[in-house]
Amino acid sequence: MSDSRLIYLPLGGAGEIGMNCYVYGYGKPGEERLIVVDMGVTFPDMDTTPGVDLILPDITWLKENRNRIEALFVTHAHEDHVGAVGHTFDALGVPIYARAFTANIARGKLAEYGVEGQAVRTVSAWPETVTVGPFSVGFLPISHSIPESSALVIDTPAGRVIHTGDFKLDPTPLVGEAWDPALWESVAKDGVKALVCDSTNVFSQHAGRSEATVGPAVEKLVSEARNMVVATTFASNVARVKTLAEAGDRAGRSICLLGRAMRRMIEAAVETGVLSGFPKVIGPEDAAQLPRENVMLLVTGSQGERRAASAQLARGKYNGIELKEGDLFLFSSKTIPGNERDVIRIMNQLSEKGVDVVDDAMGDYHVSGHANRPDLETVQNLVKPQMVVPMHGEHRHLREHVKLAGQNGRAGVLAVNGMMIELSGNEPRVVEYIETGRTYLDGSVQIGALDGIVRDRIRMALNGHVVVTVILDEDDEPLGEPWCDLMGLPEQGRSHAPLVDILEEDLAQFMGRAGGKTLTDDDKLEEGLRRVARQTAMNEIGKKPEVTVVVSRLS
Amino acid sequence: MSDSRLIYLPLGGAGEIGMNCYVYGYGKPGEERLIVVDMGVTFPDMDTTPGVDLILPDITWLKENRNRIEALFVTHAHEDHVGAVGHTFDALGVPIYARAFTANIARGKLAEYGVEGQAVRTVSAWPETVTVGPFSVGFLPISHSIPESSALVIDTPAGRVIHTGDFKLDPTPLVGEAWDPALWESVAKDGVKALVCDSTNVFSQHAGRSEATVGPAVEKLVSEARNMVVATTFASNVARVKTLAEAGDRAGRSICLLGRAMRRMIEAAVETGVLSGFPKVIGPEDAAQLPRENVMLLVTGSQGERRAASAQLARGKYNGIELKEGDLFLFSSKTIPGNERDVIRIMNQLSEKGVDVVDDAMGDYHVSGHANRPDLETVQNLVKPQMVVPMHGEHRHLREHVKLAGQNGRAGVLAVNGMMIELSGNEPRVVEYIETGRTYLDGSVQIGALDGIVRDRIRMALNGHVVVTVILDEDDEPLGEPWCDLMGLPEQGRSHAPLVDILEEDLAQFMGRAGGKTLTDDDKLEEGLRRVARQTAMNEIGKKPEVTVVVSRLS
Repeated sequence: MSDSRLIYLPLGGAGEIGMNCYVYGYGKPGEERLIVVDMGVTFPDMDTTPGVDLILPDITWLKENRNRIEALFVTHAHEDHVGAVGHTFDALGVPIYARAFTANIARGKLAEYGVEGQAVRTVSAWPETVTVGPFSVGFLPISHSIPESSALVIDTPAGRVIHTGDFKLDPTPLVGEAWDPALWESVAKDGVKALVCDSTNVFSQHAGRSEATVGPAVEKLVSEARNMVVATTFASNVARVKTLAEAGDRAGRSICLLGRAMRRMIEAAVETGVLSGFPKVIGPEDAAQLPRENVMLLVTGSQGERRAASAQLARGKYNGIELKEGDLFLFSSKTIPGNERDVIRIMNQLSEKGVDVVDDAMGDYHVSGHANRPDLETVQNLVKPQMVVPMHGEHRHLREHVKLAGQNGRAGVLAVNGMMIELSGNEPRVVEYIETGRTYLDGSVQIGALDGIVRDRIRMALNGHVVVTVILDEDDEPLGEPWCDLMGLPEQGRSHAPLVDILEEDLAQFMGRAGGKTLTDDDKLEEGLRRVARQTAMNEIGKKPEVTVVVSRLS
Repeated sequence: MSDSRLIYLPLGGAGEIGMNCYVYGYGKPGEERLIVVDMGVTFPDMDTTPGVDLILPDITWLKENRNRIEALFVTHAHEDHVGAVGHTFDALGVPIYARAFTANIARGKLAEYGVEGQAVRTVSAWPETVTVGPFSVGFLPISHSIPESSALVIDTPAGRVIHTGDFKLDPTPLVGEAWDPALWESVAKDGVKALVCDSTNVFSQHAGRSEATVGPAVEKLVSEARNMVVATTFASNVARVKTLAEAGDRAGRSICLLGRAMRRMIEAAVETGVLSGFPKVIGPEDAAQLPRENVMLLVTGSQGERRAASAQLARGKYNGIELKEGDLFLFSSKTIPGNERDVIRIMNQLSEKGVDVVDDAMGDYHVSGHANRPDLETVQNLVKPQMVVPMHGEHRHLREHVKLAGQNGRAGVLAVNGMMIELSGNEPRVVEYIETGRTYLDGSVQIGALDGIVRDRIRMALNGHVVVTVILDEDDEPLGEPWCDLMGLPEQGRSHAPLVDILEEDLAQFMGRAGGKTLTDDDKLEEGLRRVARQTAMNEIGKKPEVTVVVSRLS
């Protein structure tokens, strides 16, 4: 076995926050048997991915090596870890292992693609393990902002790896298992080859706060509210939803869940037994009938998503419920960078309705789900791994995390997506670079990030679009003059005459001057017309539009 | 004079942060003589204004009432207060009054439009005043994050108004005048009708911090750095630039300014005498020659602007200077909501180069330029205005500020853009609604926000664009089959055949079925072709594109 090696290869999540997808392999170089850990998505934005519905890891390498893959393990049910299981199942078709709550969510995603539930196999917590190929894998409980988040204990002939997944060190997480240092110590005591570790909060200097610290402030706020109370948080943060619901319940309010994800998550948590004692909920019809001071809505859309319940309530009536002067709206959440404008828009719409908005600006109504810098050190010192491999972070987080490991005398490696790392030596070592990237789900089609499709959309959005049409007869002579259709461009510019007229005039002049060499050559003709259209537009309106030239030949 | 009134009308900046433009009027209703305070811009984003270069207040109402306008007063030289003076000068053509530093910047903006410098008249600080029509206006010094920021003392026959402009209460601002409570008290002692007041930080619960508190931390950081040091902040924050430069100077580093705005602001501050004792600066050529540990760069681009020096240094060589492993990059700034992704992109690019990035996450390297909630109360209690009119804030800020005034027993009014408020009564009162909005500078053309041009761009970006071309002969019979050009759309979808082929096939079928009534009617034909193209695309790729139909008739 001495010519076999243990490798680690991130395909998503290393050099970004989102779209997690990590591969481990063991065997002879190039023939390693593989397992995949997590298959997540990330979300598009107008700046870089207009019109795109979801962003998935590019799994080309996995498809090429499909027959070497033993299984997919999912650490927890956040979208950036489980979101792509449905979209990629067809291409990979490997068994999926997860704990009960995560499996419940994963099955829902597969069902949307018509895949049956048995594709996902439920595994109990450590010490249960699953053996696939040369790997034995167990789900080690760890606290996070979703139930049943787990680190993976991955045993291989080259030693034990702990892949933390997302985690925090919470002794009182309210829902799900508490951080259990004794359990972790026992798992680590015989030596850990590598700790592959969440890096999200490596820049946060203070130890993280427990989920339990949120309750008192929420309870005070809700108990003092005099009209309707609405609260939003990530639906998957079941502990938080429970805290909010209990605060409402104690204040004599009936709880109403709004938004598909909110209902789905609570349902999954109850079905799988991770949540009990949740206050009775009522439907929106009943909520609309009750006195406002007896209702508390728990709603989706803490990140300002336009179609979620928060945004809809901010815009107007939703499910028969309308917010009014004196109602209270609590964001029990942190705004993820990039979502600020959407969240602020909602806050202002609520303000226009006279609704009092409360958020976590003062740190009272939210805690992070990720381990802060001192917590990362705690885990390193407990697990005492031979090497630290930071993951789940942007480049700056991974780099800082490597530094932190170094400060504690441990070997670290900055591995970003596509870097295959050999873990079986004494120090981590880059052995290969794999082509990686992003796949866009666009409508019902998966397209490559570098296909140029989205680039063209961005160009049209920035520059507008001119369509130039010319017709040539059988003798390659222009039949009439060129004409233009404009989209996304000002109607007139410097000349105070319609831009379309000025463009058509200049294009007609070009056609008049064009000789047989140009008129018989589609490429030359298109290039000439495009150049004239762009230059004329530049003179008139100060910008060069995208130009599509349509040449029709009657032949 | 009893039938005359004093009015206040925000045209920009009330209900948003940015694009400040406020109007005061005195006289008989509808015949008030007017002054304008500030003429600022706001910045576009890809989400709502792709391709737009700048956003200006819609000054239609001012143009319609041009002969009633006495003058424009500019409180300070931030872009959201002075940025539109050049773009609107032609349309208004009124004299502009400002203090020396602001006037210097304003003249630069007018020069870009070929307007001579005498259009801007320099006014000294209070007690100097300018009398225009029924108004007497003085510039009352107040601290902010730019030199010579001033409140306006606006005396009218109906009483005194204090328009704060942007401000903070800083006893040690380092550059420019300190907050002088005695001066303000003396100005207010005979009674103030209305305090029209900055609302930006009304949600910040603690008293603001002085600019002087930033120095020690910066000095420590710079003195401990071992390679090149780069720092970025708003160029207009001359005090901060000075603090940074002095820290570099004391650490034995030569100072190099990079970015046009950085050089322009320091130049203006020196020219107008607000800045003295600034360390000697060197050019980038010299900086590139010196040992790295002897250089400090002060650069533009703290908000991640793609063309600014920070972004260019993060991408590669800029002005002959390249950052390297072990250099230090300080963001002495706060990221404005909406700019997070751009700033984070730069931080990660710097991380990839091995540059250590330090920001204000822990609150050590930046202070805000706006008055916090307790500071707003301090000013209210000092000025004791009859009424408080919050401005410079989103709806939620204005609303909270009105509440704050109420808590202190003062009448407040929530006035957003377009609401004309009468201030001459005992309580503020809405007397009219004026149509307001935004004007986009798009290339060299000013377009209206509601013209539909930007909406079309957004649609193309989200949905892609299909151009369908058909030719009909003299008898209204199709000449050949329709064809399609696609932009921003996947090449194939469900059928695994080229999307363009599938579209053309379905469009040809439609043309084949179409009767004379359709073929002779351009509108019907276009509508039919559009419907087919959208439906076919929906089936194939799961989205409905924008469709432009070009019908050519050979007649």
